[in-house]
Amino acid sequence: MAKFRHEVIAAVLRVAPGRERLQVLTWRRTREPFTGELALPSGPVDAGETMDAALERHLATKLDLTDLGHCEQLVTLSDPERDPFERTIATAYVGLVGPDVEPGAGSAGQWVPLARLGQMAFDHRRIVDEALDRVRAKMSYTNIAYALAPVEFTLAQLRDLYIDVLGYEVDATNLGRVLSRRGQIIATGRLTTPGVGGGRPARTYRFRSSRYCVTDPFAVLRPVNPANSTK
Amino acid sequence: MAKFRHEVIAAVLRVAPGRERLQVLTWRRTREPFTGELALPSGPVDAGETMDAALERHLATKLDLTDLGHCEQLVTLSDPERDPFERTIATAYVGLVGPDVEPGAGSAGQWVPLARLGQMAFDHRRIVDEALDRVRAKMSYTNIAYALAPVEFTLAQLRDLYIDVLGYEVDATNLGRVLSRRGQIIATGRLTTPGVGGGRPARTYRFRSSRYCVTDPFAVLRPVNPANSTK
Repeated sequence: MAKFRHEVIAAVLRVAPGRERLQVLTWRRTREPFTGELALPSGPVDAGETMDAALERHLATKLDLTDLGHCEQLVTLSDPERDPFERTIATAYVGLVGPDVEPGAGSAGQWVPLARLGQMAFDHRRIVDEALDRVRAKMSYTNIAYALAPVEFTLAQLRDLYIDVLGYEVDATNLGRVLSRRGQIIATGRLTTPGVGGGRPARTYRFRSSRYCVTDPFAVLRPVNPANSTK
Repeated sequence: MAKFRHEVIAAVLRVAPGRERLQVLTWRRTREPFTGELALPSGPVDAGETMDAALERHLATKLDLTDLGHCEQLVTLSDPERDPFERTIATAYVGLVGPDVEPGAGSAGQWVPLARLGQMAFDHRRIVDEALDRVRAKMSYTNIAYALAPVEFTLAQLRDLYIDVLGYEVDATNLGRVLSRRGQIIATGRLTTPGVGGGRPARTYRFRSSRYCVTDPFAVLRPVNPANSTK
């Protein structure tokens, strides 16, 4: 009976302040194979361990990262050639963190803007692309953005976050209306203090829950009348 | 370095003619563990094989099933206790077939209506539930229904298929309008021949493509104007 080394891999994303905001957490390899190339954090699953526990362990010990706002399984990769040293089946996860989360100072972790990300070691670039596709889709029908957003934000800041992830223009007023109607965001009752530029103070909001949920499961084909549901 | 047996598991669904139409393909176990209980088709991955190839091989050799209309990875399960005999990591798939697809006559495969499905061996019941959740969600923003539908159908028949999968009422006229607008279905130009009941002949339709695609990626948060996309 064939047996396989099994590893977990994490594509951790954030939307940082400043420019080139959408970023992925990487490290530069110092050993064969793929010496000198960027890779995602990864590591083997131990004998008595679940994959989730292995992922948590590797992120904590290698990168001092313990506070993922959201984490979900993405895809399992089994190409016999994916690791040139040893046949390895890998389960990739996508993780989301807030704008200011940093890997441990002593770790090899570094944030790289997706806009400047080139080839990576193994099949890790493909994993980043799939992670981004997944998050983009879920921005539309779940509350997943809570895991990327600051605790408190203006609608303009939230719009910028959506634009950074989705890659296209989003209207702040419409976004605020949709997310308020779904009960995803609520007004804090506070205003921003005017900035150096002297703009008008703006209302601030926060996500109502930091528990992941599907807010809009049948975005197009809604039940005609939920009261008649045969479910 | 820990090594693991890796298996693939398939939750194959169809919407059959008649009653209790939404069904999953199972077989009844004749050996320990879980003797006598229903299980999903499954089998180990071989040394030089991808998971996709292993799945194809097991479905073909055990159930004579070679024509999945759609097949995608669902989830990978790694609980150390999930197989009481041997630590096994399993990757589950969801497969969809047309209404008349049957497992090989000599095989142990049997269709079981989801409405009557109880406990199953291992964690297979959980896999069926996740498979159904996945398909329900994708009925809304992809063309995945092509894999369950007959080649040619009336809007009333298509509505019934959606109702069977989604579990709630769907309006035929609205469904036809949405799927036509997206270019998913097209009229064949033919009419049904009147049935025994003597109803009016109805227009028939077919899915335009049997290639899976996301038809409505941002169902709610559409681009304001695709021409302005910064993607």
